[in-house]
Amino acid sequence: MSAFSFVVEGRDGRARAATLRTPHGELRTPIFAPVGTQATVKAVTPAQLEELGASLLLANTYHLHLRPGAQVVEQMGGLHAFMGWRQPILTDSGGYQVFSLSDRRRIDGDGVTFQSHLDGSSHRFTPERVIEIQQQLGADVIMALDECPEPQDRLANERALRRTHAWAERCLAAKTRNDQALFGIAQGGIFEDLRLQSVEFIVGLGFPGIAIGGLSVGETKAEMLAVLDAIEPALPADRPRYLMGVGSLEDFVQAVMRGIDLMDCVFPTRLARNHAALTPLGRIHLRSAPYAADPRPIDPDCACYTCRSFSRAYLRHLVVAGEMLGATLITIHNLTALISLAGRLRQAILDHRADSFAASFLAAYRKHRLPEPVP
Amino acid sequence: MSAFSFVVEGRDGRARAATLRTPHGELRTPIFAPVGTQATVKAVTPAQLEELGASLLLANTYHLHLRPGAQVVEQMGGLHAFMGWRQPILTDSGGYQVFSLSDRRRIDGDGVTFQSHLDGSSHRFTPERVIEIQQQLGADVIMALDECPEPQDRLANERALRRTHAWAERCLAAKTRNDQALFGIAQGGIFEDLRLQSVEFIVGLGFPGIAIGGLSVGETKAEMLAVLDAIEPALPADRPRYLMGVGSLEDFVQAVMRGIDLMDCVFPTRLARNHAALTPLGRIHLRSAPYAADPRPIDPDCACYTCRSFSRAYLRHLVVAGEMLGATLITIHNLTALISLAGRLRQAILDHRADSFAASFLAAYRKHRLPEPVP
Repeated sequence: MSAFSFVVEGRDGRARAATLRTPHGELRTPIFAPVGTQATVKAVTPAQLEELGASLLLANTYHLHLRPGAQVVEQMGGLHAFMGWRQPILTDSGGYQVFSLSDRRRIDGDGVTFQSHLDGSSHRFTPERVIEIQQQLGADVIMALDECPEPQDRLANERALRRTHAWAERCLAAKTRNDQALFGIAQGGIFEDLRLQSVEFIVGLGFPGIAIGGLSVGETKAEMLAVLDAIEPALPADRPRYLMGVGSLEDFVQAVMRGIDLMDCVFPTRLARNHAALTPLGRIHLRSAPYAADPRPIDPDCACYTCRSFSRAYLRHLVVAGEMLGATLITIHNLTALISLAGRLRQAILDHRADSFAASFLAAYRKHRLPEPVP
Repeated sequence: MSAFSFVVEGRDGRARAATLRTPHGELRTPIFAPVGTQATVKAVTPAQLEELGASLLLANTYHLHLRPGAQVVEQMGGLHAFMGWRQPILTDSGGYQVFSLSDRRRIDGDGVTFQSHLDGSSHRFTPERVIEIQQQLGADVIMALDECPEPQDRLANERALRRTHAWAERCLAAKTRNDQALFGIAQGGIFEDLRLQSVEFIVGLGFPGIAIGGLSVGETKAEMLAVLDAIEPALPADRPRYLMGVGSLEDFVQAVMRGIDLMDCVFPTRLARNHAALTPLGRIHLRSAPYAADPRPIDPDCACYTCRSFSRAYLRHLVVAGEMLGATLITIHNLTALISLAGRLRQAILDHRADSFAASFLAAYRKHRLPEPVP
């Protein structure tokens, strides 16, 4: 019997509420996964993540391969033991980071050779090697190696698709652990025909989960949503759908309404370290002078530790004084904003009122959104 | 009836176990107070401090006066509400920081004029002003303004003593809030006769608590301990004794064995941000290569969150990768090391085995202390 199952418990339009069972527990979808690039969600402890309701974390194969190395993680009992996270973990394949972070890279049909952004050392990722590394890391969900070209370059996307598809087959063949689920990644940039072709190919290989890669990397919001609209009918109803690297409050709602189950993004945690807090009425830049004596919490309707305990005035003081606690407290709030939104959206789907929930959420968000101050 | 009381529950030699009642709860002594300079203990939340057993926090009047300003703190409901700490708080008078941090200062009989280390702005502290600021901040225990000269300079200490004593009288006269306890500070450098003279004068003014200032600032350990030995007979048995700015594991034990009840120090938190962990067998510098695949916790006998959850290998990874979580987790451990030591020492005093506890603790600490690696 498989360690994994995926059961859709409710549908409302294209939106779905489901449960994904993994060896480290069950995940309720729609779900937002905080990103722990280097085996830590920056500025918060696993205990704080549990308290704020996180259940799935993402970690980056590229980063962990370079430092501390997958062998060290394996020796320490795998990623769950290493980083002190008892619930499910997903690792990406490193493909996106090779194309966005590494200093030099040379891609060929067999794989990609690249230099570390840390020390310039040379490394090679092939489909087989990336599966081997992810098997050493030991996450519950692992990802196939893919190529991520510029989303608007048609020729590059056609070429990349051939590689991504061939690598997907090789990743499937290389995988040996049966306590990990390997998800395939569909690419194709902003081109709906390429996207459809890629989804159909990846679905056809029998992956237990389908990821949409290469979005939110330079295309417009309208282009991203058009892609999601185009591919939704081709996505199998009985498998989880993962939109990679997307995670503003607005994008989360829009993607779920287009049939996406799972998203991850560095956005809420990175924003927190830049002193901006997410609210249903737009972002609050806590460094701003008007908050110096503001006794209100970030969001009076938020139940997170930060909003229960601290004023905007205190958070501004921490930020202005350069205190690490500022990043920690705003991170706790921002992750709560996404995770509680996911929970409310799930309930709305189960109650068959997802449309009205999404419409009123998006209307309030757009109406009140504060102008972005110059940083 | 006073909001404060001090009851000594046990004595063993010169060491004491007592309870200090304050408007924000009872403190069991001997006690170590973590330092929250800018209204935050760096890198940890109040919830984490509560979980690790902290009860009294110190905050710095000098820093909070400069930023965000005592009026802002008062407007936000006082320091407890502002920083989200429900248990007792102590503020220092700012005297030490004026003499150690400010860019320029001119001292006169009436007070001290200094320039902010942040922006060069000019400020003036008098005894009356320092009490006013501390009354706005609203800590449970507040401190008299004192002058801190070089500990080995006899003439400077004689001159400073006259000012410190006159300022102590003016602080007492200026205080109006009866939900705060004002402690006096005895100075005198390394000179036992000056120290005795100062303790006798400060005790004679009737302060409900006596602090020993100006130690651990350049003198030798032997000189510090000689001062504590010299003054102990002159310290009243029925009032708390506070040794300011001292807080290594070894110093804590030695001072408690000489009749000290309360200490504070940035040492454990600052050390943590420099990647060093305190253990009963000496310091562990977690950046060191030998810990790269070390599955053990910092201290197998420690019950803190960090030691329950994470290996030295993980902590080293965080430190090498520059992740903030490293500072947070090591801070949690280092504060636990001091606070749990205080608790065990208290029990040993109540059980009349403080001598043997201290002797075996100090012997193990000295025997195993690792050589300090070159940073």
